[in-house]
Amino acid sequence: MTTLNKIYAKDFGILPNTSQDMTNLFAKMFAVYPSHAHFVLEKGTYHFSSDQAIQADYYFSNTDQENPRHLSILIKDMDNIILDGAGSTFIYAGQTTPIAIDHSSNVTVKDITIDWDIPLSAEGEVVASCKEYVDMYIDPKMYPHSIKDNLLCFQGENWESSNTTLYNPFVEFDHVTKKLAYRTGDFFNSSKHEQLENGTIRFHGNFNPIPTVGNFGVLRHNKRLHPGLFLNQSDHLSLHNIIIHNTGGLGILTQFCDTIHYKGIRFEPNHSKGRRVISGHDDGLHCSNNRGSITVENCWFYGLMDDPINVHGTSVRITKVVDSHTLKGIFVHHQAYGFDCWSEVGHEISFIENLSMASYGTNKTKDFKLLSPTEFEITFEDVIPEGIKSGDALENLTNSPSLLCRNNYFGSCRARGVLVSTPRHVIIENNVFDSAGSGILIAGDANEWYESGACTDVIIRNNHFNECVSSMYQFCEGIISICPEIPQPVLDKPFHRNIRITNNTFTAFDYSVLYALSVDSLEFSNNKIIRSYMYEPYGNRHHMINLDYCQNVRIENNALLGDVLGQDIHTKGMNSGDNQENVMPISSTGALQTL
Amino acid sequence: MTTLNKIYAKDFGILPNTSQDMTNLFAKMFAVYPSHAHFVLEKGTYHFSSDQAIQADYYFSNTDQENPRHLSILIKDMDNIILDGAGSTFIYAGQTTPIAIDHSSNVTVKDITIDWDIPLSAEGEVVASCKEYVDMYIDPKMYPHSIKDNLLCFQGENWESSNTTLYNPFVEFDHVTKKLAYRTGDFFNSSKHEQLENGTIRFHGNFNPIPTVGNFGVLRHNKRLHPGLFLNQSDHLSLHNIIIHNTGGLGILTQFCDTIHYKGIRFEPNHSKGRRVISGHDDGLHCSNNRGSITVENCWFYGLMDDPINVHGTSVRITKVVDSHTLKGIFVHHQAYGFDCWSEVGHEISFIENLSMASYGTNKTKDFKLLSPTEFEITFEDVIPEGIKSGDALENLTNSPSLLCRNNYFGSCRARGVLVSTPRHVIIENNVFDSAGSGILIAGDANEWYESGACTDVIIRNNHFNECVSSMYQFCEGIISICPEIPQPVLDKPFHRNIRITNNTFTAFDYSVLYALSVDSLEFSNNKIIRSYMYEPYGNRHHMINLDYCQNVRIENNALLGDVLGQDIHTKGMNSGDNQENVMPISSTGALQTL
Repeated sequence: MTTLNKIYAKDFGILPNTSQDMTNLFAKMFAVYPSHAHFVLEKGTYHFSSDQAIQADYYFSNTDQENPRHLSILIKDMDNIILDGAGSTFIYAGQTTPIAIDHSSNVTVKDITIDWDIPLSAEGEVVASCKEYVDMYIDPKMYPHSIKDNLLCFQGENWESSNTTLYNPFVEFDHVTKKLAYRTGDFFNSSKHEQLENGTIRFHGNFNPIPTVGNFGVLRHNKRLHPGLFLNQSDHLSLHNIIIHNTGGLGILTQFCDTIHYKGIRFEPNHSKGRRVISGHDDGLHCSNNRGSITVENCWFYGLMDDPINVHGTSVRITKVVDSHTLKGIFVHHQAYGFDCWSEVGHEISFIENLSMASYGTNKTKDFKLLSPTEFEITFEDVIPEGIKSGDALENLTNSPSLLCRNNYFGSCRARGVLVSTPRHVIIENNVFDSAGSGILIAGDANEWYESGACTDVIIRNNHFNECVSSMYQFCEGIISICPEIPQPVLDKPFHRNIRITNNTFTAFDYSVLYALSVDSLEFSNNKIIRSYMYEPYGNRHHMINLDYCQNVRIENNALLGDVLGQDIHTKGMNSGDNQENVMPISSTGALQTL
Repeated sequence: MTTLNKIYAKDFGILPNTSQDMTNLFAKMFAVYPSHAHFVLEKGTYHFSSDQAIQADYYFSNTDQENPRHLSILIKDMDNIILDGAGSTFIYAGQTTPIAIDHSSNVTVKDITIDWDIPLSAEGEVVASCKEYVDMYIDPKMYPHSIKDNLLCFQGENWESSNTTLYNPFVEFDHVTKKLAYRTGDFFNSSKHEQLENGTIRFHGNFNPIPTVGNFGVLRHNKRLHPGLFLNQSDHLSLHNIIIHNTGGLGILTQFCDTIHYKGIRFEPNHSKGRRVISGHDDGLHCSNNRGSITVENCWFYGLMDDPINVHGTSVRITKVVDSHTLKGIFVHHQAYGFDCWSEVGHEISFIENLSMASYGTNKTKDFKLLSPTEFEITFEDVIPEGIKSGDALENLTNSPSLLCRNNYFGSCRARGVLVSTPRHVIIENNVFDSAGSGILIAGDANEWYESGACTDVIIRNNHFNECVSSMYQFCEGIISICPEIPQPVLDKPFHRNIRITNNTFTAFDYSVLYALSVDSLEFSNNKIIRSYMYEPYGNRHHMINLDYCQNVRIENNALLGDVLGQDIHTKGMNSGDNQENVMPISSTGALQTL
């Protein structure tokens, strides 16, 4: 057990409940105690403006690229640190990342609430609507805004949104259920806005569906620029009891880190300020290219504008086979590049055939260097596998973490609940999912998002899935959706393997409880599926379990309560070399079904 | 294993899909094979009219009294019987009990759907509403009705409802959530009805709350006369895969029976006929004065107008101490009397002091006889305890069952989820509760409902409670409410004991998760409480855990996710002899709390 020195922030002039900008004071305190320090704050409110924020170049993963970034509190090159907010609230002004940890080790941040006086996303209420227009009331004090060139712009401290960044501009929440409105998804489209005399904003367009009067929702106007917390190339990090009311990008972005423990993280609208929905601009916990273990427990997610949890690597595209040991390649996704640490020497790299997504084999990195922010050259210890060609992909197996995700609540957020793509051990247990899209998405692709990788060991157990998939988002083919992007799936080359879904409860208003593509060794057993009538079924799939190109599937002993839709298993391409479709019943009394 | 003779109903002219009344044919078939018979039907639709129904006097427990009763299929004095509907639908006409089992042994009824063409309750939709009136559309074909003397009357086969029986006349369901509308409860009150020209019915009154336009609900017009199934003084009964779309009273009334197994019972609106809410007039499984074991599993409840499950005995009031061994008494509740089998010789009877609800002790019955349907005389083997007086109560401990309630779904119904009052072993596990009132109510009283008795051994574990107590019904003081009616509770004389609530998950929008009155040895541990924002909190209790006059309470290791309301424990009268109130915090990180 390392002994830490207790450092009282007040001794550095960091006093609560003043209007002073605390940014520089924190930097000074950290400069004095870069190691073995337990920083303790007086409980209260502290202010941070982007004016004083540290400016530095960072390639934030899965974030719009724009350098330099602003960082308000930066824990860099430090070790054995606890930052204890003692229940304090940090109020930010402007475009900035509230707290960043970079190249540090053994850091705990805890008991802090993060908010903005002027949030970086806005919230409105529908006061009138029809096919041609939607009128919304947007509080002008909380969300200052104006019309410029027929387009709604929001203004904050040192920033102004422009129409080009008003994307998914209205994510609609039902005023009765407080959940994402049924079948709304990402359909709101308006490029002409008007200030009406009654103070509301009229969005002109051609609306289908028509937003419901009384409903409210998030106006997501800014670019995805600054995560709430940014954790980079560090190890053994703990984030405990952190409440996030707002972000300018991903909630907590963790990249190229080793071993992270999130506990008691809450993404929560600030109800005390009258905010009903908005808690964050994008994902909650976005974990990209990490290793070691990731633990997420006792967290609470609601009102996020993208997946509460997304754990993945970044796969990259091969553009040229230079020689028997060397390849050139590029980062493809426009929000994920510039990673000079994508591979270190000795990392194990997998070679992926991009059409079948099958692996050619693995090899170890001898050298990796960026040629530009988007281009790199990689040299391997051994001869690269035969057949590798431009268009194929690489995946870093060393930079892949295990995931333990337990005892969390996934309230209604835009998109899915947990998105996970990692070859290491994954346990998702004892969670409650109220997700608007799929509760769990296991994806993986090397063709569009380039979020790797194939799963090899996943357990999903003892979770409760409540009325999920009330709106359709990408890849949400079932309450649990195993949906890698494989242009040409082949039965004999399964992408994922060893996925066990047991002892879960699903309340389902629609047919598709499980969709699985290209899995070897899939178990769906001892689950309970309960018919719900909360929404009308609307999905394209009309079977309870949908299996495409899977093998070694075990579906047994599932209990169906009530008039569960489908009560059957649809298969496609389950015999080698064919694309034949079949349907078979599943017994409502829980009989054995082995394929 | 008993060998049964396979009897094909078609050989008795019981053919499907005719308009013929099957009542007499069933009676004839049973007369030929009263024992060791496995009756098999051809799958199809069968009709039963109350015209041919057997008429007999029965005192149905917790049902409006009116003799003779009508019984369509009566399995009486039979043993070792299986009635296998093979998935058939039984359509009834008029006021009748579809299936009754009386004085029989080893009977299984399975794979039958029960419905009426003209249901015995109606359903309507609110098309206009204000404080002064509510206009509803009621389908005149499905629910024939007219106005007589300014009052709405419904007409069916051989019956007409009258205004005097229009009680709780509109149980309102939200058209968005399909659940009982928030904070509606039993407030609808109208005694003047008018047929408007547009075909709707106008209910005049003084409405608060005002029903929401678009909402729909049940018009509960008839008296509680005929349960869906009636099980009386029989043993070893199994009901499997029975779907009930409608009843004229309790769903399945089981009284004075020994060992019952309910599996795959569904109370479900007949959506194929456009019915959205109505599935039954009152409780689902009402179990009164049984013994042995009661098992309820894989059942699905929705749209009932009272508790899905109610397991209790009937306590009776002492009116006179005749001599040292003999008492006179009465059945108090107007729906529960006439039980000449209330006690058999040798039954163990407990003597209850009616103000403290404490037991004076027990004694065995030597003789029990009715003096009238509501009066009885009982003689005991030993001298009755000192202090017994008129006004005190008796409870039959022999007529009390164990309960295993697992893997069920309690959808939105008027009132609570499971109501249980029995001194035997109770396990409630792996259920999902979407109840409008408390998920679980443990009551017991000898002052109003006379539903005994005290619990001594209850385990509530691994259940999911979803947004319960959205409307206030009697005794619903928390998501789990332990709420016996004790006029003068005394700490040293606890009514219930040994209640363990562990490993459950609660999504809670209001404060009160647990209320407990007069419990000795109460455990609330390893539960997860998740803050929900689905509804505004409205309850009178502003603490998470509320304990009145309890002792030996263990509250530990509960996890709170999100901004759970209260996060505290309120106690009252927890030191002997005082009524003092105290509040203490509960740690959100799951610390130990021992009182």
